[in-house]
Amino acid sequence: MKTYDLALIGFGGVNRTLAEIIATRGDALHSELGFGLRVVAITDLRLGSLVQAEGIDIDMALNIGANETFADHGGSRDTNNEAVIRSCTADIVCEATFTNPDDGEPAVSHVRWALESGKSVCTTNKGPVALRGPELSALAAGNGVHFEFEGAVMSGTPVIRLAKKMFAGLKIDGFEGILNGTSNYVLGRMESGLDLDAAIREAQDLGYAEANPAADIEGYDVRLKVLILANQLLGADITLQDVSCEGISSLTRDDIEQAARKGLRWKLIGSAKRSKNGAVTAGVKAVAVPLAHELAGISGATNAVSFNTDLLGPVMVSGPGAGRVETAYALLSDIIAMHHTSEVPSHA
Amino acid sequence: MKTYDLALIGFGGVNRTLAEIIATRGDALHSELGFGLRVVAITDLRLGSLVQAEGIDIDMALNIGANETFADHGGSRDTNNEAVIRSCTADIVCEATFTNPDDGEPAVSHVRWALESGKSVCTTNKGPVALRGPELSALAAGNGVHFEFEGAVMSGTPVIRLAKKMFAGLKIDGFEGILNGTSNYVLGRMESGLDLDAAIREAQDLGYAEANPAADIEGYDVRLKVLILANQLLGADITLQDVSCEGISSLTRDDIEQAARKGLRWKLIGSAKRSKNGAVTAGVKAVAVPLAHELAGISGATNAVSFNTDLLGPVMVSGPGAGRVETAYALLSDIIAMHHTSEVPSHA
Repeated sequence: MKTYDLALIGFGGVNRTLAEIIATRGDALHSELGFGLRVVAITDLRLGSLVQAEGIDIDMALNIGANETFADHGGSRDTNNEAVIRSCTADIVCEATFTNPDDGEPAVSHVRWALESGKSVCTTNKGPVALRGPELSALAAGNGVHFEFEGAVMSGTPVIRLAKKMFAGLKIDGFEGILNGTSNYVLGRMESGLDLDAAIREAQDLGYAEANPAADIEGYDVRLKVLILANQLLGADITLQDVSCEGISSLTRDDIEQAARKGLRWKLIGSAKRSKNGAVTAGVKAVAVPLAHELAGISGATNAVSFNTDLLGPVMVSGPGAGRVETAYALLSDIIAMHHTSEVPSHA
Repeated sequence: MKTYDLALIGFGGVNRTLAEIIATRGDALHSELGFGLRVVAITDLRLGSLVQAEGIDIDMALNIGANETFADHGGSRDTNNEAVIRSCTADIVCEATFTNPDDGEPAVSHVRWALESGKSVCTTNKGPVALRGPELSALAAGNGVHFEFEGAVMSGTPVIRLAKKMFAGLKIDGFEGILNGTSNYVLGRMESGLDLDAAIREAQDLGYAEANPAADIEGYDVRLKVLILANQLLGADITLQDVSCEGISSLTRDDIEQAARKGLRWKLIGSAKRSKNGAVTAGVKAVAVPLAHELAGISGATNAVSFNTDLLGPVMVSGPGAGRVETAYALLSDIIAMHHTSEVPSHA
């Protein structure tokens, strides 16, 4: 049976959890999915790098001491990302470093090095997909390898592949989504009576919001996801500057209460729409929607996208939009999709 | 390029609309999907049957006069279902006759004749899938052909294939769904102040409810769908008698109002759950759910299923659950799935 060798680039929550899933459920996955997974390289800013073509001991890597690096386990204190990615024997590179919303680096380079050296890539990183997606997809196609990134939009909840595979034969002419759980949670808490700052602090205490909540509250995170969906699913050819962006930071409890009196509820909605002439307009904006609106009932940290299709009208999917396990599953789902689509070129 | 020859069994709303889609969008589908579609046989209780291996003129069939039958166009006044299904040159039989909730006939026989004669089948008919699904799937597998039935649950909204394909690697241990648009519409109107009978009459006027609304109101329609989903997605091996069933006919406006005062909303929910010992329990029941429940916001005639998964928690899909065009698309989506899965055996 086929075994895919993986390189894990960035060994934070997502790739650590993928490694845990492989360690604890690998045998079950093997028999269920028809392929095995083996980790042959790991790089990480703190831990350095480790390359073992015969397979890394995942338990060792997961339990490495706070004062240790991979140098203490036969590897290097340096990440050596370019050398590791280009020359390791991995078939698939799992890129899960931090999102850089400005130029996508260093993840863009990680993806490029992998594709150039004939390795398939799965990533949960919005940066490379939003800012360099079409270019990297073309590079993958030119090298006969896969580039999958389901986790860049709603973690493991299927959105991109759902629309591409399950809606075959339909025309999608637009979508509306709640694509950021933190801001949706904050709006819900404001509806319950908190003011914006208190709601943000609560979200931070719960681990939803970052110390700097601007990416969530100002809509920047949603903007990247709207850009990805517009280019992937509407065939748009737009850049970040084409996606208008307003967050929820100017909303007051008074706005929330006034809306409630009119049977409306504020939601931060990312949307895109193809007009009759084919042009795609896309943006992020707080909208007071009627309670009967399909996104009105999406509460807490849940995310959702409603696609407008020609033959079915609106079809919506909702589920988690974040989380360690949920995002690690996105990588696994990418690998499953590669396995089913065509041969993943081997580098063993 | 591949062309699939179709036999349309039952030429009512669904198969007529499939024929319209082929006639009006066939060329676009051809270039987009990589295959063509041609109708080589039609049978219908009123119109009789017509078999033309070189392709039936769809415009003629769609515009046949109220006093005409296929006998006036080179066919027969008789349906001749067994002979047509067994001996026509179709690659795929599209079964869209009426649902018989007792024994699934005559649709079960239609499907069996097709599979036995080496033809693939797609159907939107709940009867054969709910009552004879595993047996017919085994017959298809034994004959090397396809048996697809996405439209039997939520018309064109992907549910069965979504769970099977998009949730690969996940364990689904249960689902809850709103699987009947008529009863959901009626509950919404009762919340707006109508009593049950008035709400049903309104649903009938809008074309949602049948003259005899029992299948919708008593939960029988949902029961068939729960049976299908439990057997298909939870690996249950249960029959209709194993699915408990209570409808909404005993609900009064007072029940609705009392629930509303407690922040609850009545929904007719079909569900199934796998217990720790592997047994699956399934049923249909009106439940007063909290407004924050993910199914609480599913309004009007919309349907939805929320799957409980191990790695993602609840993931929900919602969309139309009925409609001529929506259900015809389900057949098209079945054909697309066959095309992508493996070769569809040819009978030309």
